[in-house]
This record gives sequence, C-alpha cells and structure tokens, in this order.
Amino acid sequence: MSSSVALTDASSQRDWQPIVQAFVDVLSDDQVVRRKEELLVYECDGLTSYRQRPAIVVLPRTTAEVAAAVKVCDRNHIPFVTRGAGTGLSGGALPIEDSVLIVTACMRQILDIDYDNQRVVVQPGVINNWVTQAVSGAGFYYAPDPSSQSVCSIGGNIAENSGGVHCLKYGVTTNHVLGLKLVLPNGDIVDVGDMPETPGYDLTGIFVGSEGTLGIATEITLRILKSPESAHTLLADFNTVEAAGKSVSEIISAGIIPAGMEMMDNFSINAVEEVVALDCYPRDATAILLVEVDGSPADVAASAQKVSEIVKANGARQVAIATTPEERLRLWKGRKAAFAAMGKLSPDYYVQDGVIPRAKLPHVLNEIEALSKKYSYDVANVFHAGDGNLHPLILYNNAVPGQLETVETLGGEILKLCVDAGGSISGEHGIGADKRCYMPQMFTPADLETMQWVRQAINTQGLANPTKLFPTPKTCGEAAMAQSAKFDEIERF
Amino acid sequence: MSSSVALTDASSQRDWQPIVQAFVDVLSDDQVVRRKEELLVYECDGLTSYRQRPAIVVLPRTTAEVAAAVKVCDRNHIPFVTRGAGTGLSGGALPIEDSVLIVTACMRQILDIDYDNQRVVVQPGVINNWVTQAVSGAGFYYAPDPSSQSVCSIGGNIAENSGGVHCLKYGVTTNHVLGLKLVLPNGDIVDVGDMPETPGYDLTGIFVGSEGTLGIATEITLRILKSPESAHTLLADFNTVEAAGKSVSEIISAGIIPAGMEMMDNFSINAVEEVVALDCYPRDATAILLVEVDGSPADVAASAQKVSEIVKANGARQVAIATTPEERLRLWKGRKAAFAAMGKLSPDYYVQDGVIPRAKLPHVLNEIEALSKKYSYDVANVFHAGDGNLHPLILYNNAVPGQLETVETLGGEILKLCVDAGGSISGEHGIGADKRCYMPQMFTPADLETMQWVRQAINTQGLANPTKLFPTPKTCGEAAMAQSAKFDEIERF
Repeated sequence: MSSSVALTDASSQRDWQPIVQAFVDVLSDDQVVRRKEELLVYECDGLTSYRQRPAIVVLPRTTAEVAAAVKVCDRNHIPFVTRGAGTGLSGGALPIEDSVLIVTACMRQILDIDYDNQRVVVQPGVINNWVTQAVSGAGFYYAPDPSSQSVCSIGGNIAENSGGVHCLKYGVTTNHVLGLKLVLPNGDIVDVGDMPETPGYDLTGIFVGSEGTLGIATEITLRILKSPESAHTLLADFNTVEAAGKSVSEIISAGIIPAGMEMMDNFSINAVEEVVALDCYPRDATAILLVEVDGSPADVAASAQKVSEIVKANGARQVAIATTPEERLRLWKGRKAAFAAMGKLSPDYYVQDGVIPRAKLPHVLNEIEALSKKYSYDVANVFHAGDGNLHPLILYNNAVPGQLETVETLGGEILKLCVDAGGSISGEHGIGADKRCYMPQMFTPADLETMQWVRQAINTQGLANPTKLFPTPKTCGEAAMAQSAKFDEIERF
Repeated sequence: MSSSVALTDASSQRDWQPIVQAFVDVLSDDQVVRRKEELLVYECDGLTSYRQRPAIVVLPRTTAEVAAAVKVCDRNHIPFVTRGAGTGLSGGALPIEDSVLIVTACMRQILDIDYDNQRVVVQPGVINNWVTQAVSGAGFYYAPDPSSQSVCSIGGNIAENSGGVHCLKYGVTTNHVLGLKLVLPNGDIVDVGDMPETPGYDLTGIFVGSEGTLGIATEITLRILKSPESAHTLLADFNTVEAAGKSVSEIISAGIIPAGMEMMDNFSINAVEEVVALDCYPRDATAILLVEVDGSPADVAASAQKVSEIVKANGARQVAIATTPEERLRLWKGRKAAFAAMGKLSPDYYVQDGVIPRAKLPHVLNEIEALSKKYSYDVANVFHAGDGNLHPLILYNNAVPGQLETVETLGGEILKLCVDAGGSISGEHGIGADKRCYMPQMFTPADLETMQWVRQAINTQGLANPTKLFPTPKTCGEAAMAQSAKFDEIERF
C-alpha cells in the first residue's frame, strides 16, 4: 500500500489543449473543468488519505454525452476514472495521473417509475435515498441503505456493490439491479439485464461491483420493494462479545432473518454516548446488539418475542423493544452516528471492511482486540453482525508522521485475519486503490487471471479506471510482481 | 430453427483411436464410452426432437479428472459438451457432431455440510432434491425446485439457471450459488465466489446460466435455508383469466410475496383431472390459482387471510385453504402432474418458456389463445404466474410430418409476443440449441457482441459447447448472418 502524501502535480508531457477542445466540442464549455483550483475538489473521494489531481473533469448529463466523452478518451488513449458523489471509502474514484475524471453528478434524473412491475429507472448521479423518497408515497422503498445513503449516488453504489444495515435480509446492491444501460470503455452503448430472468450471460451481475473498470452505467433499472407493514427494533446488551456473537448465530439458526442485526463494542458505545449523548446505550456493556425485525404485524411480534428469548438465554442483561417509528429512530441514532462520533474523538480514523463467517465472530473480535493492543491503537467495532461484515475503525492522527503507515499495516493484519477465518477482504466498500494489494491473499493467480480476461475483453485498451481493483507490479511492488506479471499489459501508460 | 430429423452419424475425418487412448490414459477404461450402441442414450437431452450422437462420452469422477479430460479436448482442438442428468428442455446438453460429451453423472457426492454458515458443497451430478434430503433432518432445505427436481442435477441447474415453483419468493438458482470450483475450457482450475460478498468480478454470477459455454463447475457451494415453520396453500378458481391475472398483481402489490403462485388454465385443469383424477380442481373454471404462503404461523395465517380476501374481491368462485402437509400435497399434486398429464393426452408436446411483466398476463394469455386458434393446435397454460414465467404447452404429434415445424413456428410467435410485451425468451429452461435464433429479438447486435467478448475471453478456442446459446450464421441461417458475422470466428470446426 502506498503512502498518504499528496502526489505531485501531473508532470504531463501531453498537450491537453486539443483534448479540452475535443470535450468542449461534444459537451459544452461549462461541462469541461480544467482550471487547477476547480480541479482541487476532485482530488480524492471518501478515502481522503490518497490524493491525485485529474487533468480534466467532464460533467456529462446524458448517455449520449457520456458515450461522446468516453470516445474522446478512447480515441486519444487517455485513462478515465468515473466518479459519482465521491463518498467511496476505498479510493475507487481516486483520479490517476494524467487522467480524465468523468463525473456523473449532473445526471440526477429519475427517468421512470413503474409500480406495477416494481421498478424505477434512474440516472447514476441520483442520490440513494432520493429513490425511496420518490416512491414512498405509494408504499414502496429501495432496500440497499449504505450509511452514506443521504449523500452517496446510485452509480457509486453499483460500482462498489454497496451494502447497508438492511442488506442482511434484503441483499446488497446487486440483488436490486435489474438492468443497466452501459457505456462501454470504447464508447459503445449496450443494454444488459432488465428482467429478473434474462438469458445469456449475466452482464448486469458482472458489472455491479466492477468498480468502474468495465464502463459507465448511465441508466439503471432498480427493483423497489413494498415497505414492510411493521417493524420492531430490539436493543440487547451483553457482558461478553461471545454472548453477543452466539446470539447472532442462534437468531439466524432459529430461522429468523432480521432486517438488520448490528453490533457495537464498548468503545463505540461510549464514543456515541459522549458525542450524541443519547443516554440509551448502557456505557458498561461489553457489546450491544441492535436487531430489527420487519414484516406483517403478526410476524414482527412473534419474531421480536423469539429474538428477545434468544438474547436473554444468552445472558443479555436487558432487552429494550422499540415499536414506534420514534422509538426505533432513537435506538438507531447512536449506530448511525457512530462513525461521526469517532471523528470527534480522534483527528482521523481508518475504516476497515472485512467479512467473516458469522460463527467466527467472537474469535475474530478477540483477535482484533489483541492486534489493537499489539499496535497500541484504539480500534472501535461497529458492524453488520448478521452477515459477518466487520467495520473496525482504527483511530489515529494523520498529522503524526508514520501513524497512517502503521495503521494501514494494522488494517492489513485485520484483513488477513478475515481471510484466514474463511472470509473476504471487502464486504461493501470495494477494493479500489486501497486494497488491491490484498487481492492475492484471497485469490490464486489463476483466479485473478480469469478476472483479468474479462477485464481485457471489455476494457480492451485498459483505459477504464486503470490500477484499481486488481494488484499490479506498479501499484503493489515486487511482492505481487511474480503473480501479476501477466497483468502488466493493461498498465502500459 | 433446424428440423427435428435425427442427424446422420458423424462422418468424421478424424482418427478417434488416439483420442480414446488419451482419455483412457487420464481416466480409466470404463470411464470412456465409445461403442455406438452405448452412445445412443446420450444422443439428446430433454429436448427430444433434436438428436446427435457424440464421438466419445467420458465419465469423470473428480475435479482433477474433469480438468484432465478438458485438457485432452483443448490439446486436440475437440469441441466438448457437458451433460448432467440430461433433463434440460432447451437442448443445452445436445451433443454436436464430432464432439466429446463430458458427463457428470458419476460426480454425485455431497462434499460438505456447514449448518452454522448455511451452506453445502456438492459435486455437479448430485440430484437437486438430494440436497434438501441431506439437510432436512436439521431443519434446512435447498430452495430452487424445478419440476424435474427428483431427477435433474445441480450442475445442469447451474448451467441453465433453473427456477421452480418457489423461486418467486426465494429466487432462482443464481441467488443460491455462493461459490464454484471451475474447470475452464483450457483445463485450468479456478475458484470463484464463496462468500455472499466477494470482491472482484462476480464470476460466479456470470457462470450460472452460461449453459456450458464457459467451462464446467465441479464443486458447487450452495446456500441452504431454514425450512419455513409453517405454510398454507390456497386454491382459487375464476371465471376469467383477467380476474386471475388481476389477483396475481394485487397480491404482490399488497406486499405479500407468496412462496409460489401458479396458474393453470381450463385445458390444463381438465387434463390433470382426467389423468390424475384428483377431483379437486373445478373442471368448469377458466383458470385456477395456487398460492402458497410460508413463514411463521402468525404471518402465514395473516397472509392467507389477505390472499383469500383479494381473490374473492376479484371474483374467485371459491377458495380452498390447505393447512396440513397432506392437504397441501393434494392441491399441488395436479400442478406437479400437469406436464405428465399432457404427455398422456397427446403423443408429443412442446414446452415454451417465456417471461412477461406480471401486469401483462391477461393480455398475453388472450393473444396465446388467438395464436392457438390461428394455428389449430391446442395450447395448455400451466405456469409461474407470480413472476410472469409462462409455460405454454403446445400439443402435437411428431409422427405427422410437418407438425413439429409448425409447432416451432407457433412457439416462436409466442416468444415474440413475450418480447413485445417487454419480457424475455427464457425464464428457466435456457436458450441451448432450441432458442438461439431468437436471441436477436431480445438483444441488439452490440449487446450480443459484448457477451461474445466474455465468451471468447474465457472460452478462447471456442471448444466449450459451441453453437449453443448464441445465434450463429451456421445455426440461424442468412437472417442472422448480418448480425452474427463477428461471431463466426468461434465456429471454426
């Protein structure tokens, strides 16, 4: 993993003026950003420890404009990076040197709503929770709900296959994307998917989570769901992480699939209590579980009762059940404010995003605690317990030289722990620029090469988000070189 | 679409003896079938109107043996077709001339059961309902349930992305495959997927439904679900197809997702009443709906009540509710026997498999009736109404020259109707050899070309199940030639 220092300005040999003119010709003058001070805001996404100024930013408004912009890149062999709202946490939208950043922020129209067939069609710059707002009056909602849902865009959700609190029951982004209009890296426009059952290769599925390396989605058909009639939220607090972890497994084993099942450790509880001052999470608990059940009123009451019995049998000290929307919001408020609370407690934090089999939760959490002591950095755990998706937050101070590097090493050890436990190096934040060098821990050279075949088949010139997602000798150094020699071809600029 | 006459024996110029020896060297003598009379049984799959004898059949038992067999094909540039139990209805496992048929019927081990993480690992020849049988004692089941589930294999289910009665609520095969060990067309072994959240390209997703064109799955990790605590089945009968169709839409709009929601028309009702003599479906009904709701007892009771109200409000003449397993089985028996009943009423039947948006059900069913009259062939409709997956069965007599050709034309008109209604040419049976020439009705040349890029990237020599799934000039004639010119390269043998 490379260091966090801001990269120097691109010392490009290219004459950008004809390129700027080519973009102005196919877009309009105010859709092409090239003044250095205007480019500043595009230097990084939510992974703020990496920065790189793009050469040009373009702001298309339609599929045709995206295709025209991509064709300019293709013709001139210029790498391009696509950016939605820029909230991604793995540096997927981080520009690379001498690249064009294609920003979808001006593509914010909801193009169609079809309640009969439970689908909406949106442009990629539409903000996640605008979809629910648009259909909630008719009793529908869009299920995937990343914590950033009030600011992140659907295009970025698709690039990273975003999850969220309610994805335990309802699935992650890929389970809710029915079809896509795509601009391929050569500028061609294709339509993939559309119906839940579409013959041929599932190109929709392979595009979701491909992190901008296979093209740009310009029209997105999303599934909307009928809002649940009823929901209850339970808060249970425990003396041990083991008891909380065992409750998680037993709730699932009992056949209950909660809409969400989140865990927070003592550090996180105290952080939110100090910052948000809710006075609803017990400060002396080793861990709390927030369990939401939804469905018909009868089902919700029965499930809530069963969850309550299970957590009590596992030693929960107390169980609170919120049955009204106001009570539920109050219980969730601390969880939703957790990341912000860390930001107030510490100058910086580094969020990791690993996945483990549910049954390994207590073991892995204990190991993370041991790593926290070994490195002498506080690690807070706030995460999607139901699907084993950990989010350890490592607190540090980026102003102290060397801290980020140490924190990245600690983060790497946590990922290795997840992989060793039979898990994954990313649950919902993606690989981006941040975790590409860990891919060989999870995949064999043959596995990675097969993915590269697909990348090279669709992204033939290697212009779409190069250096992201996959390890390369250039980005991952000598260690990865032996495994990645065959990938070198696409890294030619 | 080509005619149904049995193709002539391969007039191969190849000397097969060294090839046979090469297979015997890597497998064993009794795993290599080459006597003409033994090859006879492999001439077709469930689409019996097409027949082609393979040159050799091999019967590997392990991943290593599959890889070794594929490498023999790769080295000698021999096309290969993979076959599971041979129950497919689109000719996906139909051999092609001078090909090797790799049969997974000897790969029937359940390799691992992990209840904690709700997954099992199986070989591809494992029969679909063996999975449920293996885990039902612990209260689990495998959800996708094609009608052929007592005889079809998991490998074939994956190739065709099979559906089933309960896929409305629980999703089709692709939603239940967590990971795959694959033998690629060059003989390399790779692992894809494994966790619900895996970074990188979703190769698992693209492999499921790829109909044998991207390699062979040799170890398959499936999700198992906790068996529902309770289920009720409702039978409602209607005077009009419109009333049944409107009920389907309203049940879904009410936020109920039935485990299954099947429709049968008057012709089908009478067919099963005559053959199975259940005396439970009203012979004078224009259509019946079978609606199954499952979940917790409280939820099931509430949902059944609501479904009952909706169908009555739409004019259902009577509503029967089966609450015990015995009663439920009795209601389902007629639906499950429907295809067999047609087989007793008519010498042959041709099953079509189209998908339409749910809201278009009444319109499309009326159009199918009009086509049935226009062509003077009886068409029975028995289908997954909840997800708009039609299965019109066209009754005919293959012994009468010309009937199959007419029936295929009629089937093609039905598919066109589905596409025009915004639907799909296959819901769960796949494209195979049968429907490849209809692909250009659903996809643009650019869409199909993008799929070909993926095919050529992974299946570089074009040896894995050539001529299937995609239209080619060779198979689809002049009409498709203009669109398919670029695909010609992979059809070189």
